[in-house]
Amino acid sequence: MPVVTFFGRRKKRVVVPRLRSRSDTPANVNRVDLGELAPGLLPYLGQVAYLQLTNFETLSRAIVDAPSTEAKEAVSRVAALALAKHHSLVTEIQRKGEDAGAVMEPYRSRIDAYARIILGNDWYETLVACYLTSGLLDDFAVRLAGGLPGDYPARMTALLSGDSGSDILVHQLRVAIEANPHLASRLAMWGRRLVGDTLLIARSSLVIPQGAKEDERLEPVFTELIASHTRRMDVLGLTA
Amino acid sequence: MPVVTFFGRRKKRVVVPRLRSRSDTPANVNRVDLGELAPGLLPYLGQVAYLQLTNFETLSRAIVDAPSTEAKEAVSRVAALALAKHHSLVTEIQRKGEDAGAVMEPYRSRIDAYARIILGNDWYETLVACYLTSGLLDDFAVRLAGGLPGDYPARMTALLSGDSGSDILVHQLRVAIEANPHLASRLAMWGRRLVGDTLLIARSSLVIPQGAKEDERLEPVFTELIASHTRRMDVLGLTA
Repeated sequence: MPVVTFFGRRKKRVVVPRLRSRSDTPANVNRVDLGELAPGLLPYLGQVAYLQLTNFETLSRAIVDAPSTEAKEAVSRVAALALAKHHSLVTEIQRKGEDAGAVMEPYRSRIDAYARIILGNDWYETLVACYLTSGLLDDFAVRLAGGLPGDYPARMTALLSGDSGSDILVHQLRVAIEANPHLASRLAMWGRRLVGDTLLIARSSLVIPQGAKEDERLEPVFTELIASHTRRMDVLGLTA
Repeated sequence: MPVVTFFGRRKKRVVVPRLRSRSDTPANVNRVDLGELAPGLLPYLGQVAYLQLTNFETLSRAIVDAPSTEAKEAVSRVAALALAKHHSLVTEIQRKGEDAGAVMEPYRSRIDAYARIILGNDWYETLVACYLTSGLLDDFAVRLAGGLPGDYPARMTALLSGDSGSDILVHQLRVAIEANPHLASRLAMWGRRLVGDTLLIARSSLVIPQGAKEDERLEPVFTELIASHTRRMDVLGLTA
């Protein structure tokens, strides 16, 4: 699994995410706090806003490439939700008296490079990428929000936890996989590949002091993020 | 001018649109009624909804290719407006108990082919295309709405006349043209080229009985559409 490279020093530990029942994992209990590693408010808003815009762009590509008008229309709903989140985040930046373009700019080239990687080779891969990466990155951003000042933790959690249209993507993908079972293994492989680059882009937004201690701290967080990723793949009927 | 091909039988008449002052042309007065040539309600909604989706897709391309984060952000506002119009039209289709994908499908290949033509060679051409073609096609759809039943004429006019973000596009383009005056002649040429294909796609949505009489009827409508197109180019400082 690509994630091992994050903790290359301890390769002996193999991350094996397991599906757990809902009752095993009460939300927000025993969650590792990432707050101390959170960037400042504006870098946070800039990165999360740009990631939402990037997700929207990937969805736009999926709209253009959609195999039917019905699929096009469905994905456009998801794109509208991503764009609305992006605009809400831009409004947050503007409330601080800052220019959103300038606040997002420092993260552009890195995130654009990531976006090219996750675009995939066809519509199905693009759609899987939208579903899996936005899920993981929104999860991560919610965790990170704990380190923000004032009422931002609650506001960011509400904003990012709002409907992202993932049920629409899941429906489109499940129909496609059922119609063409050969898709399943290819998309499963693709889903596994996505996690490495997505964790890297998540990690790059942290302010990590020098030293290996922080990796120890991060590891359980990443393990949880991977477990959620695995659940998302499971929803598609794909083996992570 | 490409438009002459529409009325090839009477090439001697050259359409020379002129800028007129606002007071010369009171809105909705002396307008040629297109209503009798309007398609049925569902074909109308299907075509207009798909054209809005296409406009959104072209704007998405402009977001991806934007030369700066500020431009990307600005164009995303316009894309959101186009998508909202599309979704409103889809809601209208659903209110009639129909599936939006199925209602839009018959127009897909023709409009997709058009969309490829107007994409242009770079960001500036794409943006000019969004501004000019959505202006012309919305104008046309408003005219056509007069032939719809019940309160649809008023509702469609309100929906299509809502903010389309053209001021944002105009601002982006004017700044670009001022920074690089060489753009002006290229974009002027491009704007002139767009009008032919855009009028063709508009015309293709009409239900025209056999015979030349309808062309005579259409000609003044197209002349007005071209005059508005010329005004839009004028706003950019481009010579039509």
